[in-house]
Amino acid sequence: MTIVNEYRPVEIYFGEGAVKKAGEVGRRFGFKALIVTGRKSTKVSGALDKLTKSLDEHGIRYVIYDEITPNPTDKQVNKGADIAVREKVDFIIGIGGGSVLDAAKAISIVSSNEGYAWDYVRYPEGSRLIPYLNRPVITIPTTAGTGSEVNRYSVLTNPMTKEKMVISHSLNYPKVALVDPELTYTMSPELTAITGFDALMHALESLTNKRENFIAEEYAIKAAELIAKWLPVAYEEPENKKARRYMSYAAMLAGIAIDHLGVALIHAMEHPVSGHYPDVAHAEGLSALSTYITAFNYKGNPEKYALFAKLMGEEEKPHRAVDALVKFIERFNLPKTLEELGVEKEKLERLAEDVYMCGRTAFAVNPVEVDMDAVYELYERAYEGKL
Amino acid sequence: MTIVNEYRPVEIYFGEGAVKKAGEVGRRFGFKALIVTGRKSTKVSGALDKLTKSLDEHGIRYVIYDEITPNPTDKQVNKGADIAVREKVDFIIGIGGGSVLDAAKAISIVSSNEGYAWDYVRYPEGSRLIPYLNRPVITIPTTAGTGSEVNRYSVLTNPMTKEKMVISHSLNYPKVALVDPELTYTMSPELTAITGFDALMHALESLTNKRENFIAEEYAIKAAELIAKWLPVAYEEPENKKARRYMSYAAMLAGIAIDHLGVALIHAMEHPVSGHYPDVAHAEGLSALSTYITAFNYKGNPEKYALFAKLMGEEEKPHRAVDALVKFIERFNLPKTLEELGVEKEKLERLAEDVYMCGRTAFAVNPVEVDMDAVYELYERAYEGKL
Repeated sequence: MTIVNEYRPVEIYFGEGAVKKAGEVGRRFGFKALIVTGRKSTKVSGALDKLTKSLDEHGIRYVIYDEITPNPTDKQVNKGADIAVREKVDFIIGIGGGSVLDAAKAISIVSSNEGYAWDYVRYPEGSRLIPYLNRPVITIPTTAGTGSEVNRYSVLTNPMTKEKMVISHSLNYPKVALVDPELTYTMSPELTAITGFDALMHALESLTNKRENFIAEEYAIKAAELIAKWLPVAYEEPENKKARRYMSYAAMLAGIAIDHLGVALIHAMEHPVSGHYPDVAHAEGLSALSTYITAFNYKGNPEKYALFAKLMGEEEKPHRAVDALVKFIERFNLPKTLEELGVEKEKLERLAEDVYMCGRTAFAVNPVEVDMDAVYELYERAYEGKL
Repeated sequence: MTIVNEYRPVEIYFGEGAVKKAGEVGRRFGFKALIVTGRKSTKVSGALDKLTKSLDEHGIRYVIYDEITPNPTDKQVNKGADIAVREKVDFIIGIGGGSVLDAAKAISIVSSNEGYAWDYVRYPEGSRLIPYLNRPVITIPTTAGTGSEVNRYSVLTNPMTKEKMVISHSLNYPKVALVDPELTYTMSPELTAITGFDALMHALESLTNKRENFIAEEYAIKAAELIAKWLPVAYEEPENKKARRYMSYAAMLAGIAIDHLGVALIHAMEHPVSGHYPDVAHAEGLSALSTYITAFNYKGNPEKYALFAKLMGEEEKPHRAVDALVKFIERFNLPKTLEELGVEKEKLERLAEDVYMCGRTAFAVNPVEVDMDAVYELYERAYEGKL
């Protein structure tokens, strides 16, 4: 066995009502917060009110920056960082889905250091920026999917170049995650399914890629098992306490798994899709690509794909992983092809080129060797629905 | 469900050869280390040589302080802190069993702050000392039992008063744990068994006490399961790679479990024993007390004791937890009574008083209500071997 690393610097509060901890936890970091959120859902659902009530009770002032969209841009981050600096906030709270949490973390980096958001994508670890000088971040997920609440990743899109790239740096860890399953009760069945699928892809890709870390793999295994068992229940019964709890927990575990093990080709090939088509949600892209890529990948790590199939309730055979995904996507009515998502056939070549530009880290760990032709062919299959 | 907290600030490198990471990791913290260790075993086993070789390769100078004994004293810590200050070391490395790791962590606190070691037992959390001003600590366990490598506890004895008390503070976390199962290969079967029993008691008490934390409880469950399976193998085959690996892993998990959930009456009643009889190893005391206290406790949390029994390979019934321990102690020839350990009968009353002085935290979470009479009676039973 190689030496494995486990590093989990994010303090977690998990449970129904955890959002109410925001004021108490915030007081560790200061007296004024920037709340980062999206335009609508946290207001409609009441999540934002719960948060501000807790801050009020602890005498914490706040400024709300509510302009984060799905597939958040570097410009949105830069603007948030400007506000953080101008308003002299002590810390940052992200409340929302993955896009919001990704943005909140990046706003901390940009507001506490030199430069702009895009300077920090692929920023190397070694440069010894000093984490405790950063504005601390509290993450409060309102979906059960992203895992961003507990890891070092922020995926940002540059709308000028259509590039979608990742900040992956220890500076980018939040300090505290408040994981409150109650905040997910208001998700529609559709949103429940698609965000749950995101978490499932984190579990699948971290488990099956070439990296090895038996500790983190256990998180991925546990996550896949819980999603297979509880997503159907959360989908049918939005207020089923146990189902929501286990989905929030699974998403968090999968987020920790990818923090240690990274992802692979499904993610690498998805990023250009939602990069060029910002109306496509990340997890929709994952869904439309996942079966074709899994059919291509499973021979590279038969043991782990067989395990994944078993966790999903299928026979423990590598190729059953594909069947498991097909059924899963069918059951929750998730996207099956790129065409459905509005991707244009003539764009496929450009997407393939972008994978080469932006997705090389995931490439290196993919269970099967990939080249440009293979990527293009997989896009074609995913476009045409040819398994 | 209550809101549970998970905080795991210690970075872990786990695997055969992890000790060789010391130089590379140490360079994050500076150029001169204080190595804290015991008088003999790390020298004989070659563990200390592996460590210093790695430091040499990375140009890190070091001073060795090798005076830590089992049941380490506050005076040993104060002396180590003096050396750390005088020698202007940048960081501290503890290499050894639980006593050494406990001492190394406390040396960091005392050498980086005001006062003496004994000022920090029961030191309250709220006082906001600043962790990053502390000398960073690297822990390198050479046994598989203590779990001290990953948690905030240091158990110290004051030889003047015979008190045995605990530093439990977030300042007391090591920065990095290098958990290298190879360093445990040289343990005798006896030491393997007794230190493994220590880890098992961490799992048992964290799982069954009144505190609840489903995340941390999973660590305790996993630890108990692994110990039941792999301690017999490690006991028979000292160089069985898998057995040693899983025992090191289990001890670490159990150490994380008690960090979140604390212990209970077995630990509270053991501390006065090895406090008054410093030649008694902590885990020997645990062994001599465990069956009697479990027989007293199991009705307070029948579900969890039944689970523990099952994890140990017994029928899933609460009282089977006692049987499991009896068999376990028998199998590994561990101490069965206080009398065997040289405890004097006329001391039992004093021990019971000391539990009241020093053990109240564990009291409060014990599955069953305890009073002075109950403690005395349990000591009597453990003395006489009356289950």
